[in-house]
Amino acid sequence: VDICCRPMVSFLRETKNNRHGLRKVIHSVKVGLALVTVSLLFLLDPLYKGVGENAMWAIMTVVLIFEFFAGATLSKGVNRGIGTTLGGGLGCLAAALAQAVGGVGKAMIVGITVFIFGAAATYTRQVPKLKRRFDYGAMIFILTFNLVVVSGLRAEQVFEIARDRLSAIAIGFAVCLFVSLLVFPIWAGDELHDSVVSRFELLAISLQGFSKEYFGNVDENEKKTGFNFGSKCKSVLHTKTKDETLVNFAKWEPCHGKFGIFYPWGKYLTIGEDLRDLATIILSLKPCLKSTIQPSENSTLGQSVKEPCEAIVASQARMLSELGESMKKMKKCESEDKILLKLKSMRQELSLVATPSTVGINHSDKTEGLGLASFVYSMME
Amino acid sequence: VDICCRPMVSFLRETKNNRHGLRKVIHSVKVGLALVTVSLLFLLDPLYKGVGENAMWAIMTVVLIFEFFAGATLSKGVNRGIGTTLGGGLGCLAAALAQAVGGVGKAMIVGITVFIFGAAATYTRQVPKLKRRFDYGAMIFILTFNLVVVSGLRAEQVFEIARDRLSAIAIGFAVCLFVSLLVFPIWAGDELHDSVVSRFELLAISLQGFSKEYFGNVDENEKKTGFNFGSKCKSVLHTKTKDETLVNFAKWEPCHGKFGIFYPWGKYLTIGEDLRDLATIILSLKPCLKSTIQPSENSTLGQSVKEPCEAIVASQARMLSELGESMKKMKKCESEDKILLKLKSMRQELSLVATPSTVGINHSDKTEGLGLASFVYSMME
Repeated sequence: VDICCRPMVSFLRETKNNRHGLRKVIHSVKVGLALVTVSLLFLLDPLYKGVGENAMWAIMTVVLIFEFFAGATLSKGVNRGIGTTLGGGLGCLAAALAQAVGGVGKAMIVGITVFIFGAAATYTRQVPKLKRRFDYGAMIFILTFNLVVVSGLRAEQVFEIARDRLSAIAIGFAVCLFVSLLVFPIWAGDELHDSVVSRFELLAISLQGFSKEYFGNVDENEKKTGFNFGSKCKSVLHTKTKDETLVNFAKWEPCHGKFGIFYPWGKYLTIGEDLRDLATIILSLKPCLKSTIQPSENSTLGQSVKEPCEAIVASQARMLSELGESMKKMKKCESEDKILLKLKSMRQELSLVATPSTVGINHSDKTEGLGLASFVYSMME
Repeated sequence: VDICCRPMVSFLRETKNNRHGLRKVIHSVKVGLALVTVSLLFLLDPLYKGVGENAMWAIMTVVLIFEFFAGATLSKGVNRGIGTTLGGGLGCLAAALAQAVGGVGKAMIVGITVFIFGAAATYTRQVPKLKRRFDYGAMIFILTFNLVVVSGLRAEQVFEIARDRLSAIAIGFAVCLFVSLLVFPIWAGDELHDSVVSRFELLAISLQGFSKEYFGNVDENEKKTGFNFGSKCKSVLHTKTKDETLVNFAKWEPCHGKFGIFYPWGKYLTIGEDLRDLATIILSLKPCLKSTIQPSENSTLGQSVKEPCEAIVASQARMLSELGESMKKMKKCESEDKILLKLKSMRQELSLVATPSTVGINHSDKTEGLGLASFVYSMME
């Protein structure tokens, strides 16, 4: 026990100040808790007399459906419930049919139904739309159907077996729900919200970092730490799969904290898509840093363009942070109108001092920034 | 039976000419086949006498580890084997310890070990590096450990139970391997190779589509079908997760077809990353289409720039297709040197007729194209 405890303690020490790490520890402890609870079915004699060997299925359920996010556990549990019921029901029917025929036909019928249902359910698992929501359920359906049908050949009381297993699985699911939702719940919705909000800030920092680098305003200190807005922007680009998974889980979660029952989770996907578009644009500015047509320190044009450009980037970055901030607090962004007006006037100012082609790159960046702003604005209304 | 057969037949008819769909059907049939094979353990009396009730574990193994790609099945099977062996071994030890103590201490020891091993294994499941390769193994470890430990409380022959289940799982794994690798195998390596190769072609088409649109060379016919290079490029952007999963599976696969035993699968990740960078650059050209500084039909500058630009984009696109083609055939791209030289001379020609700032956007695009070309070139040597 001592040997096993030591790594746990060091884990705890390491992750004390790390929120993300702390959640991992909490999740691990919760799984341990759920496992011990469900093991009581074996440990306590009165409970064991009620459930018997089928307690195994409760343990299996806990191990298989307990997931990091509350929504994922719920989704898997419901899937398992539906899959088991459907598979068990059809399995019982097929077993009864096989029993009625008897003889060699019995084995034939079992073999044929196993093949057909197995193949058909596997095919549905590969249809993208069904896969996203019911993949696990279809797998459990195949499993239960097979076990019930072939057990039906040997055991006489198929219905009793199916019923007992189903109740054991229900116990396992109940334990999971209890521990997952009531003991320090980890919500996929929170994670999604925080992740989208933090991306606003990240893009604002990247944008400012680019402007500093482009106009040569980088301190010696900053140069040492290295300019890595590229990798930050790229991390925003690769969030599509994560967003989709989290939205899928968040939809299963009951209302909690700031999130109501019909919270529009789907809109996070749209905002995420726009943020990725914006990240693409910021990333596309990167080649300009290496380009030979960088504004030289001495040219008058470079100097005259520099200030308005910097101002535009600064207010774009501010707008992004404020949008992120207002999303965090979940209220309408108030200063948005002002910033948009300011951006417009600055754009006019810039077009006075420079030919469009010279600032072509900053130009396209800005119009897109406006596009995004107006989009998010219309969404928040 | 007739009712179940009809959808299968219609599936087959639908997907006859569709390679991707056909693979799905093949996979479904293979799963059905594996399930029927493993059900024979129940159906045939001599086999059932040898394995008994534990045949259930063989069925469970087939349902849980049979995956679409051969590499995924292998990886899951090996994970399951390791997890079961480790979990079973430690479970037996813990059960023996609990038996030796006896009395109330027995239940205490079981409870404590279940909690500690459950929590520790769950924690390791969340470490990104371990998660990618051993997630399933850790889950099976928890499952087996728990089942063996708590069964040890009730049944006296823990070792026998563990041994029998392990052999049943081995039978299930053997059936999976046999069907997955020998009956129309679907390789993750092939999928990865084809997917990366097709992206070259896709980017080449997008680049040409952009050039046509930008210089106003779009036919009426093409305009009707709509310009969608944006969505094509975006599909390239979101391939990171897919690539990583496929590389992970491909590493497990034995040598097959064109791919040797120490095939450098990791390089596909690098090429994929570069293709995504290129897609970002092409996507960033999109705002120029809406921009107000589009070259007007009549300006002399626009006309003089148009031809060299078009030529550059055309040879970039050709280079991309040829790189893709050479990758498909898995030989070094021969015409690359020529195209690179041609690109260089065209670039000089262009810089004669235009100021750098005017063609700033095409300029940055081209230098990146060169960078990519030289990179892939050095890789193929």
